[in-house]
Amino acid sequence: MKELERLLDRIVQRVNINLREHEYDVNPLVQKLIPFSQMTKFYAFYGITPHHPLNLQFRNSNLAGSYFLGKCSVTNSLLYKSDIRGDELKQKADVFKYQGYEIPVDEDEEIEIVDSFLIKTLVHNFSHDPETLEKFFIRDTIAMHYANIHGSPAEGSFLGPFSTVDLTTIRDSRVGTFSYIQAGEVSHLDIEPGTVWVRAPETFNFMYRFPLQRLNNYIYFTAGSSPQGIFIDFVEDRKEAFQRVFNVVNLEPSVQVPNSASLDRFAVIKPKTHISDNVLISQRAYLQNAWLGKGANAQEQSYIINSRLEGNDITAHGAKIIEADLGKDVFVGFNCFLRGRPESRLTIGKESVIMPHTIIDIRQSLSIPAGHLVWGLITDEKDLESNSLSLKEFSKIDTRFSKGNMVFEGNGAEFVTAFKERIHHILETNGAFFNGHSNKGHAQQNQKISFNTIQPYPQGEKEGLYPTIIIRP
Amino acid sequence: MKELERLLDRIVQRVNINLREHEYDVNPLVQKLIPFSQMTKFYAFYGITPHHPLNLQFRNSNLAGSYFLGKCSVTNSLLYKSDIRGDELKQKADVFKYQGYEIPVDEDEEIEIVDSFLIKTLVHNFSHDPETLEKFFIRDTIAMHYANIHGSPAEGSFLGPFSTVDLTTIRDSRVGTFSYIQAGEVSHLDIEPGTVWVRAPETFNFMYRFPLQRLNNYIYFTAGSSPQGIFIDFVEDRKEAFQRVFNVVNLEPSVQVPNSASLDRFAVIKPKTHISDNVLISQRAYLQNAWLGKGANAQEQSYIINSRLEGNDITAHGAKIIEADLGKDVFVGFNCFLRGRPESRLTIGKESVIMPHTIIDIRQSLSIPAGHLVWGLITDEKDLESNSLSLKEFSKIDTRFSKGNMVFEGNGAEFVTAFKERIHHILETNGAFFNGHSNKGHAQQNQKISFNTIQPYPQGEKEGLYPTIIIRP
Repeated sequence: MKELERLLDRIVQRVNINLREHEYDVNPLVQKLIPFSQMTKFYAFYGITPHHPLNLQFRNSNLAGSYFLGKCSVTNSLLYKSDIRGDELKQKADVFKYQGYEIPVDEDEEIEIVDSFLIKTLVHNFSHDPETLEKFFIRDTIAMHYANIHGSPAEGSFLGPFSTVDLTTIRDSRVGTFSYIQAGEVSHLDIEPGTVWVRAPETFNFMYRFPLQRLNNYIYFTAGSSPQGIFIDFVEDRKEAFQRVFNVVNLEPSVQVPNSASLDRFAVIKPKTHISDNVLISQRAYLQNAWLGKGANAQEQSYIINSRLEGNDITAHGAKIIEADLGKDVFVGFNCFLRGRPESRLTIGKESVIMPHTIIDIRQSLSIPAGHLVWGLITDEKDLESNSLSLKEFSKIDTRFSKGNMVFEGNGAEFVTAFKERIHHILETNGAFFNGHSNKGHAQQNQKISFNTIQPYPQGEKEGLYPTIIIRP
Repeated sequence: MKELERLLDRIVQRVNINLREHEYDVNPLVQKLIPFSQMTKFYAFYGITPHHPLNLQFRNSNLAGSYFLGKCSVTNSLLYKSDIRGDELKQKADVFKYQGYEIPVDEDEEIEIVDSFLIKTLVHNFSHDPETLEKFFIRDTIAMHYANIHGSPAEGSFLGPFSTVDLTTIRDSRVGTFSYIQAGEVSHLDIEPGTVWVRAPETFNFMYRFPLQRLNNYIYFTAGSSPQGIFIDFVEDRKEAFQRVFNVVNLEPSVQVPNSASLDRFAVIKPKTHISDNVLISQRAYLQNAWLGKGANAQEQSYIINSRLEGNDITAHGAKIIEADLGKDVFVGFNCFLRGRPESRLTIGKESVIMPHTIIDIRQSLSIPAGHLVWGLITDEKDLESNSLSLKEFSKIDTRFSKGNMVFEGNGAEFVTAFKERIHHILETNGAFFNGHSNKGHAQQNQKISFNTIQPYPQGEKEGLYPTIIIRP
């Protein structure tokens, strides 16, 4: 066990050095959170398919509960229940387009994670940084519970629980609890908890801040104890259902899955779930009495309970949808928490965009009109009024707009277009537009994956660490 | 799938070249036995502990259902349900004693398996060949169902179902169905089915031949179909019990296991089984209403059903003990099939030695006196009379002795001493003599093993083959 403890100490020290100008010590935040005994008990796993170039190399790491696909390299890292999804890695000879440049990719892209500690974190690429096309790295970084690192190099940073860095190169920064940033390159920043920040330099800037006291009911994190609140309770309450999924090697799907759809074998499917054509259900998704229309998806760590999604709906990583009815083409962003009640359901009209990190938690029925942009914290009609705008109206903004805790600067139409393009891209890569021949995506290609489960040394100095493991084609 | 088929063709071709002087074509024997679909469905696994030097390297192989411990290397092999147990590999700086020589071991011993095809075969080392101390190899070899390769380099050979080569360097040879050879170095030999041959050059020579027609009821193998008979039925009937064991990742033991004993997590334990101190129960053992006294063991693929073993009894690989009562210090050799009946039990007196590949299958109660050597095929008192002798009497043989189908030449006392020394060595390595402090063996050291399960490519040209996997400390 000693080497595992030394490894944690070294990672903490390195992150502290990176964050020294914030005078920030991550030690008290991290120390009591490490379930060393769990890290020995868990098994990690990685997937193998003929479609993903392999170059997995794990050296002196702990990989508790990982999930890798595609080329990879991990060195002296602690990855506790992490998902590292390399299924959109750029391949040699691909051409990357960036602001008019067309950059050929030299070699198969690699994920590299060095001296990092990721607690129940999801890392998903589509690496966007034109400077490091062939390498997707997360060096000297600590990410807390249910953080998302999406398409993002991250270096020397600290990410709080349920925080997300999205398509962002982040360096020597701290991202507070439940903050979402999608802001291009970010260095030496200290992002307060409950910040939602979407920026395209010189084009637009969207900024929302959660009322902290109300947010604390949902997620609260302070030094010396684990994260607390409704989000944590919600996830913990459903943990047991995953135990069976992870404890059985060959699991027969409990629901009918069309040929054009895919259901990951590490997802939990409870009764009365319906899966239509072109649906993608990813690893660690949780579905209970969920009706998914054609082309809808449930991404990693998302929960869909007693709800109906008409089709081409996106449930992004970590999003939760409970007692709700979604029209077609609704986008629900990262870590959203949308909760209706059995007698007071939540309805979301077609083509609406629920911004990442939006909380809708109602006691009375609530209906969101079609084609609306929604953000922030909403518990009733009044909150909805100050936290939403139709996309049509939003497109008319040309300099500055403010509503409730939200401030927008720049071109509204560009903002709406960027969102729509991204939504289209997500549906496309996930296979929502598959027509039986062309437009294949994850839903069609991720149907057959071999999973290798691996365990660390069971005792001795190296307890909890893995031997060096190298996988090549 | 194509590469897997090509691989089999190449292995068959190489073995045929090695066996060309016997004009022996293994192709029709092997062709219909390959469950290609199973070889994609199975997962392989290997164990990791701090005690076993690791250097596992699998390249372009199929490893269906393997089990490795310790340094290893497999290249272009098909290992269908194999157990390759490297837990007695010599380590660097060990000294190997051989006929007065004391040879220091240069580096950690390696198992190497190249261009081989092993069907449900168990490979267990303690490599004895003084010429290749650091390498334990099985090159260009095909071994059929439930063959044992024990402590043995094997090169260019074909091993029939339930055959065993024990502490034997075998080259370009064929070993028939249910034959057992422990005969030092053997080259270019064609061993008939049902041969039991134990030789120490210039010291003794034990030879028994099964009456073939009676043996055929138990195990029969011919080109174009799978092996048949009572042995196969017996094993197939109990296959289902193993499915759960292999399909669950974390399995809680269903029986109390003393601190000084070990129960492998891939063994099947049915109700009313009792495990005493210093007991070792190995991978793929099957115990049902079995009472194991202090220091008794149940080795890989052994079955103990409705039976009682008083203590320090050895149940060697593949041995089956049904409705029987064994006194202390009874040795039951490889692939023995000992079957009493519920109302007509088999009793074996203390310190008796049941030779490897002995069949005792009775309808009326039978009692084997203490301190007897037993061999061959026994179904009643009359058979027992012609297939046994007290060890005391056996020790008196000084030139030649013959009884029934058995012929012995040489020194009986040396033969008995060799057996007793080996039995003592087996108990010692298995931890039967552990006293709470010293004399640790497998029973004490194999309690904590991490198992990594790995799967082959799920589709495409390489379906059924594994990527290159390299594991180092």
